[in-house]
Amino acid sequence: MYKLLKTIGRAKRGEFHTPHGVIQTPVFMNVGTCAAIKGALSSEDLERIKCQVELSNTYHLHVRPGDEIVKKLGGLHKFMAWDKPILTDSGGFQVFSLAQLRKIKEEGVYFSSHIDGRKIFMGPEESMRIQSNLASTIAMAFDECAPAKADRSYVENSVARTTRWLKRCKTEMDRLNSLDDTINKKQMLFGINQGAVFDDIRIEHAKIISDMDLDGYAIGGLAVGESHEEMYHVIEQTVPYLPQNKPTYLMGVGTPENILEAVERGIDFFDCVLPARNGRHAHVYTNKGKLNLLNARYELDDTPIDDECQCPTCRRYSKAYIRHLFKAKEMLAMRLCVMHNLYFFNNLMEEIRSSIDNDTFFEYKKMRLEGFKTAENDKVIYKRNKTL
Amino acid sequence: MYKLLKTIGRAKRGEFHTPHGVIQTPVFMNVGTCAAIKGALSSEDLERIKCQVELSNTYHLHVRPGDEIVKKLGGLHKFMAWDKPILTDSGGFQVFSLAQLRKIKEEGVYFSSHIDGRKIFMGPEESMRIQSNLASTIAMAFDECAPAKADRSYVENSVARTTRWLKRCKTEMDRLNSLDDTINKKQMLFGINQGAVFDDIRIEHAKIISDMDLDGYAIGGLAVGESHEEMYHVIEQTVPYLPQNKPTYLMGVGTPENILEAVERGIDFFDCVLPARNGRHAHVYTNKGKLNLLNARYELDDTPIDDECQCPTCRRYSKAYIRHLFKAKEMLAMRLCVMHNLYFFNNLMEEIRSSIDNDTFFEYKKMRLEGFKTAENDKVIYKRNKTL
Repeated sequence: MYKLLKTIGRAKRGEFHTPHGVIQTPVFMNVGTCAAIKGALSSEDLERIKCQVELSNTYHLHVRPGDEIVKKLGGLHKFMAWDKPILTDSGGFQVFSLAQLRKIKEEGVYFSSHIDGRKIFMGPEESMRIQSNLASTIAMAFDECAPAKADRSYVENSVARTTRWLKRCKTEMDRLNSLDDTINKKQMLFGINQGAVFDDIRIEHAKIISDMDLDGYAIGGLAVGESHEEMYHVIEQTVPYLPQNKPTYLMGVGTPENILEAVERGIDFFDCVLPARNGRHAHVYTNKGKLNLLNARYELDDTPIDDECQCPTCRRYSKAYIRHLFKAKEMLAMRLCVMHNLYFFNNLMEEIRSSIDNDTFFEYKKMRLEGFKTAENDKVIYKRNKTL
Repeated sequence: MYKLLKTIGRAKRGEFHTPHGVIQTPVFMNVGTCAAIKGALSSEDLERIKCQVELSNTYHLHVRPGDEIVKKLGGLHKFMAWDKPILTDSGGFQVFSLAQLRKIKEEGVYFSSHIDGRKIFMGPEESMRIQSNLASTIAMAFDECAPAKADRSYVENSVARTTRWLKRCKTEMDRLNSLDDTINKKQMLFGINQGAVFDDIRIEHAKIISDMDLDGYAIGGLAVGESHEEMYHVIEQTVPYLPQNKPTYLMGVGTPENILEAVERGIDFFDCVLPARNGRHAHVYTNKGKLNLLNARYELDDTPIDDECQCPTCRRYSKAYIRHLFKAKEMLAMRLCVMHNLYFFNNLMEEIRSSIDNDTFFEYKKMRLEGFKTAENDKVIYKRNKTL
């Protein structure tokens, strides 16, 4: 159940009540594809970096260890020892981006596993059954994420099928939630809006799925190649046709800048692999822009990544130490940076929520966007390298 | 300062007072070669797994990031954010095992770095200077670790040189500790007994170095190819000629069995890469023997590695989850197993200390040795696989 606490313009401040606790929104979900955050973060670490929702990937867990195994082990929460909310994606995006020899039919998608080439079929019912086995808090509908540059007729057909699939998802989820041996009988279902960059298709689709009374609504198919301006435009056009009293989730987005812009346009759920991936490559976020810790200027820098940051990494370790760990190929380097980056995103969301609470969202957003452009440390060395 | 609290037979229970706190012995030191435990463990993790002493490698840190850098950053303790004792080895063992194009001379050893082939010279004075820059709690003397199968005349010459080197180490360490800009002016120095498997050379050398009034004494050159029986024999022969009122350190050893046998023979410091390396390969220790978590029988095993273990891994995660993490190539797998294994060793030492305190060491040793032989879980599957 979503409770809209406050709005500033279109920006929403909400509370989403789930069987695994209340999610304060806007929220950034931390991606643990295979039921673990890449970079050796444990569920215990997640608790320490202000993570509210963990996101696991249905396709990956179906392939390995197998959703039936996870069900036998009591579901994802017990499996990964995390008792707060978990969202599972539908597998759709991975089927379209990772899998090989893909064939889309009305019943679903035939494809080969990216791990062992094994033939797999996944349709709406299969995706719901897998997610029910995983017993996540929130399941995502099985959709087609059409290519950003797909032509109008392809997108029209694809969206119409996605709508038919959504109805089948809802029917199957209702059925699964009523079964005796289902682990989470209150599993929630979010629908996904598609339509590439065609405003009218997006709006028409938003209207149709809004009538289906789902637990939340995602905007999918963005951040797949279109410009930031196109993305913001689609959000602006679509959000007004999604129910305001339900969560709105912008899938796979994005940078801190993207998040601030999308919150302003009415989004309150986010997820992205960016902070963890960047962390594994020594790129860390600060309110003054990103730093590259491999940079020689940090060799003797005994200060934390960010003086003001309260994450487990910044409270204890210096840039010089982390840089050394990367150079020495110590796994700890990645863990420290991923912890910092995820904390940075989770903390950004906390600050965004406070700023809405305190009627200072626009000022906060302006301040942060200006700060991110500074990147003072790295700019200095960039200039220096150029003159050398 | 070492305080001998109690003995049972030759087994010692001691307290070693250092500028970075008191070490309760017998103790197992946790090896963090490049100032970090391999497997993404942080110094914060070390505090949680009962680690008393961290061990870093002089040679590795000299090559990268460089001991001058570590000194500028305030020494190893500040660098890795660990305020308890740190022991650094002398670099000698790595020079003899890792480095290329090695030439041993009276002044020291000429060799090429294993990382970039750079020519390096290291002698007793260089080793002391590097360790003084690192500012560890305990420095080890620069010695030659002669091959286990070296002939008598080679070992005689080598040990005589190691004795001359030890005198130079002590002179240089005294000088360094008196300098104004030395970080740890109370750095301690342990001498190293050598002599391969020749009892009389070992004993003669032990007598000579015992007279030098060092802070502690190590037995080096074992666990390099000789049998366990030969190793135990050397310890039995040598320990009586080392001062009882100083720590005795068996370098690079070993298995839980080795440790119990060596404690009985008067050893109170240990270190070994085994638990961390085994952990990274899914081999975990229990009081009923080692388990291989990759084993198919753990696919649905929702119990911890060891029901009785209080480590951060066993308190929260199941064998099935850890096995999945290994299969999915998630770094977290290694971290969870390394944490468990190091905790197992640190906890074993705590139990050994209690058993000496309570006059039950021999009973405790017997019980553990019998338990280690059980390995019930893995034996079952081993048999099963053979009949299949």
